[in-house]
Amino acid sequence: MKESGVRSQESGELHFNKVAIIGVGLIGGSLAIILREKGIAKNIVGVGRGIKNLKTAKKLGVVNSYTQDAREGVQDADLVVVAIPVASITKVIKEALPSLKKGAIVTDVGSVKKNIVDEVEKILPDTIHFVAGHPIAGTENAGVEAAFPTLFQNRRCILTPAKKTNKAALEKVKKLWEIAGSEVILMDAEKHDKILAAVSHLPHVVAYCLVNTVSNIHVPEGFNRGNDFNASIVKYSAGGFKDFTRIASSPPEMWRDICLLNKDAILDVVRRFKETLIGLEEMIKKSDGDGLQKEFEKAKEVRDGLKRG
Amino acid sequence: MKESGVRSQESGELHFNKVAIIGVGLIGGSLAIILREKGIAKNIVGVGRGIKNLKTAKKLGVVNSYTQDAREGVQDADLVVVAIPVASITKVIKEALPSLKKGAIVTDVGSVKKNIVDEVEKILPDTIHFVAGHPIAGTENAGVEAAFPTLFQNRRCILTPAKKTNKAALEKVKKLWEIAGSEVILMDAEKHDKILAAVSHLPHVVAYCLVNTVSNIHVPEGFNRGNDFNASIVKYSAGGFKDFTRIASSPPEMWRDICLLNKDAILDVVRRFKETLIGLEEMIKKSDGDGLQKEFEKAKEVRDGLKRG
Repeated sequence: MKESGVRSQESGELHFNKVAIIGVGLIGGSLAIILREKGIAKNIVGVGRGIKNLKTAKKLGVVNSYTQDAREGVQDADLVVVAIPVASITKVIKEALPSLKKGAIVTDVGSVKKNIVDEVEKILPDTIHFVAGHPIAGTENAGVEAAFPTLFQNRRCILTPAKKTNKAALEKVKKLWEIAGSEVILMDAEKHDKILAAVSHLPHVVAYCLVNTVSNIHVPEGFNRGNDFNASIVKYSAGGFKDFTRIASSPPEMWRDICLLNKDAILDVVRRFKETLIGLEEMIKKSDGDGLQKEFEKAKEVRDGLKRG
Repeated sequence: MKESGVRSQESGELHFNKVAIIGVGLIGGSLAIILREKGIAKNIVGVGRGIKNLKTAKKLGVVNSYTQDAREGVQDADLVVVAIPVASITKVIKEALPSLKKGAIVTDVGSVKKNIVDEVEKILPDTIHFVAGHPIAGTENAGVEAAFPTLFQNRRCILTPAKKTNKAALEKVKKLWEIAGSEVILMDAEKHDKILAAVSHLPHVVAYCLVNTVSNIHVPEGFNRGNDFNASIVKYSAGGFKDFTRIASSPPEMWRDICLLNKDAILDVVRRFKETLIGLEEMIKKSDGDGLQKEFEKAKEVRDGLKRG
């Protein structure tokens, strides 16, 4: 890490006396490390359910102290970062509400935004400033031990300001993610949810769907010749299918909650996907080689465009 | 490479005076290297359309000589390996037929089998022995320069003997793939096509479908706030979608041909996939969290099973 000289320049005027990180996992933990290393936070309190993870966070120096009580944790905090599963974000903010001080900034990192913005705006008074956020970053690992300070570098972080959003609070949260190395993009929560439904939620639903379809297929065993090959057909999987199983190994609870909270946008992209699939199916049925090739070339161009971009 | 002492033991009685490799690409080239290094072939002729690739194959020592004329190439060959795109396999065998010698073994590496077996059995006389094969191996690279002798190690190779298949020829081809390091599995061509439709062809069709669906979605630009973000939504892609674009960047012609040649089996798995997707869609519509979680957990178990297996 770059120290002192660089620190003051990078962090500029951004400083918080006390920061509460609710959920000290991969995302919350990584942000805590950045807050500490850049000198942005004087005191960081970790809040969580799992005592073991909190103890590890303290031992690793990611947080100065910890508590399992959200109300106790957010007491006197200037900044509260809620980095827990999407379905619990509103609930925990509601729970912590009586202890939040006037002028406190509350931000989250949930991958669904409209539902959270709407619910949180209903419960928070004007004196507490909510800034909804979603850093598009992650690894396959979970827990504070997986946290590292370069997680957000060269990634995008979407902030979704709403009608009630305080401009100064928004600027501070934006600055925070910029210091973490991210390109910050501001957009409506609804647009965020539509985009993420397409580029993230749909691929996961499709991957789960494909893995379950394939694993449900049983080819009669007696069909084999010359040897007793008994394994399930997934054993034959080459590159393509294995990639899908990796995507489909994400936490089931997390994707259940995303499907429930971003229902409308996901249903819309599933419908579009089904239409495209029916189109391909028709081409296969009619042995329309030209049509298939055009479709497949189009998809390849998207990849080539991403490589260039 | 292990030399001499091991070579004779590994290759056993397997020896061919002349081998013709039609299509000296990743698969054909890798097999040629093995034939040479293990002392299985005395003389290897490369046959292909692209003169540049053939010259490289000669320069790299992968083949002893080359020709663009299939009839010339297969003259006097004891073994002919057809390692070209599936749609051309039958055509090239038909073309080479007048030059094939009595007792010659012809084998292929196509990823669709029933259509090829049926067509080839129609045209070949009983004196020429066809053994249909499919090594489940590959990389993202093409051409003889991508070839390497360990490509088939610890992979599966499926051979699909049919009514007319000569037992001795089958044994020799089986032995060849075992020397290459593969586990050889014998099964009916129809079973092969059903399994591959599920674990390989369906994932590719679905990946193409997903990439095209997502790249067709345009969210109104004016929706943004505070900055002029104009990029296409695929720019927001995180892990999930990027994996799909990689799968969808396979050669469009190859997948067009596979869809045409394995039409029935692919249509069957596409239908199953659509049913599963409609099931998930219904659960999302009804906000059936328990149902979604069960489905997602099931998919995760398949992945965990693959890891163990």
